[in-house]
Amino acid sequence: MSFDLVSVGTVALDSIKTPFGVVDNVLGGSGTYFSLAASFFTKPGVVSVVGKDFPEKHLDFLREREIDVEGIEKTDGKTFHWEGYYENDMNCAHTTKTDLNVLATFKPKIPKKYRKCKFLFLANIDPDIQLKVLEEVKPKYCLCDTMNYWINSKKEALTEVFKKVEGMIINEGEARQYCETPNLIKAGNMLSEISRGVVILKKGEHGALFFKDDDFFAAPGFPTVNVLDPTGAGDSFAGGTLGHLAKHGVFDTQTIKKSIVMGSIIASYVVEGFSVDGVKNKRQQDIQERYDIFKKIVAFDHEYESL
Amino acid sequence: MSFDLVSVGTVALDSIKTPFGVVDNVLGGSGTYFSLAASFFTKPGVVSVVGKDFPEKHLDFLREREIDVEGIEKTDGKTFHWEGYYENDMNCAHTTKTDLNVLATFKPKIPKKYRKCKFLFLANIDPDIQLKVLEEVKPKYCLCDTMNYWINSKKEALTEVFKKVEGMIINEGEARQYCETPNLIKAGNMLSEISRGVVILKKGEHGALFFKDDDFFAAPGFPTVNVLDPTGAGDSFAGGTLGHLAKHGVFDTQTIKKSIVMGSIIASYVVEGFSVDGVKNKRQQDIQERYDIFKKIVAFDHEYESL
Repeated sequence: MSFDLVSVGTVALDSIKTPFGVVDNVLGGSGTYFSLAASFFTKPGVVSVVGKDFPEKHLDFLREREIDVEGIEKTDGKTFHWEGYYENDMNCAHTTKTDLNVLATFKPKIPKKYRKCKFLFLANIDPDIQLKVLEEVKPKYCLCDTMNYWINSKKEALTEVFKKVEGMIINEGEARQYCETPNLIKAGNMLSEISRGVVILKKGEHGALFFKDDDFFAAPGFPTVNVLDPTGAGDSFAGGTLGHLAKHGVFDTQTIKKSIVMGSIIASYVVEGFSVDGVKNKRQQDIQERYDIFKKIVAFDHEYESL
Repeated sequence: MSFDLVSVGTVALDSIKTPFGVVDNVLGGSGTYFSLAASFFTKPGVVSVVGKDFPEKHLDFLREREIDVEGIEKTDGKTFHWEGYYENDMNCAHTTKTDLNVLATFKPKIPKKYRKCKFLFLANIDPDIQLKVLEEVKPKYCLCDTMNYWINSKKEALTEVFKKVEGMIINEGEARQYCETPNLIKAGNMLSEISRGVVILKKGEHGALFFKDDDFFAAPGFPTVNVLDPTGAGDSFAGGTLGHLAKHGVFDTQTIKKSIVMGSIIASYVVEGFSVDGVKNKRQQDIQERYDIFKKIVAFDHEYESL
């Protein structure tokens, strides 16, 4: 059996405070959010590591969602723990504490069945690890994420990753930082030339931009009033996007655009609850409902009348 | 003769520095940018004041664009002068100096022919002046702008203005500030309840949001690589939007959405030059060209397939 979609990322226990509540040691991590979002469309595999303290119920929950957890290694030590808070501006996460724990020595063990997956997502981890994964896994299409920390400390290795993949799904701030330009369109075009062409820039509440060769697509953020906890929105967006792509098995521009809309919709549910609460009970009709709204909010009368 | 569109705003001489150049005492001001943008669609009137130093060639230029300048009073003193700069992040204007000059005692003199105009735009000025204008001018539809300064210092008067108009075209930051919420969707809904329902929030490079009752529209920013000077982008967006509305003479949701796209396109030209250089030589085919691109960048396959 080969897999349509595999991600390599973190499975974490998060402690989060927002103006709407406080939670302690809840399920989190890029691999978790990504896989959960992708599971709406496909049966994804996830490669990560957790400590002996990681509650078995979380793994059961992922299994229930038809996520393949064989790639989640359970090892001596404590699970990666992120502690942070959001103030009034929910667009900005403040990190209080990052306990890498078992993540400090993370060497992804890739189950054999993942090695020829069609789509691979390298979530935000050390670019040197991303490069090692790319030596082992030979996906048909690979997209990667990163963060400001790696742009500052390992830009060269990161550039190596960028060159080896179809493209990246990164935050607008990271794109500006990596490309050293405040102009996001310039940054997108630059990144498109570095990778094999596909660039998806995440802009939080402002949606996402997609660049590929001469193609450009702008998706607004889904209008969400009840933002309780933005943690995981970006990874859920990526998971929804790649999950939908994996379901269709193609990587053409039209499918990518539609997949970005799906990613936005799933991210809009994620932020409406703490941890994975906003999305865990969502079903197909919920996605369809927001998809129908999404169509409306970008629609305008296309007829151009002479001025 | 009655007018389709009149604005009350500033006509200024600006001194601007950006990473791409420096200009001194160039044509600027909200009334200028608004009217120029609107002149693509209609023959707008503008109410403002300038000093004796204001070059006649600028008035000639506005006349050439078929802008009615009878409402621009020339009075003793110097023209309103704004001096500012943009650093790497062109989204953020830094003000060095604001010489109000003749604007300090500005009492709009409204030509009689403007008093029954169909559309009125109250650009960012003292809300007390905006209220006075609304006593004299009885437009069919009025939209207003404002800025953080008035939200801080005259929120009550500003709220009076909001209650008397169809709606507002304001920056996202101002919306968040006025409504005391970081959530832009919440803010838009709140503002929609305060005014007669129409809210257009400007988000610079991220485009614009439109709220009206249960209707919501998100327009991305037009992707522009050559941003030389962002001054006037917001007023040009408003001018393009209201100019297009005035041309059609209606104020329904469908027309507003299309007008917002027109406003975005004209703003995208304005930022490509200093002062009014980016837009002054643009013609109908230029608008149409970007309109065709705009249609493409928001388009995605609408068919929803079962998951």
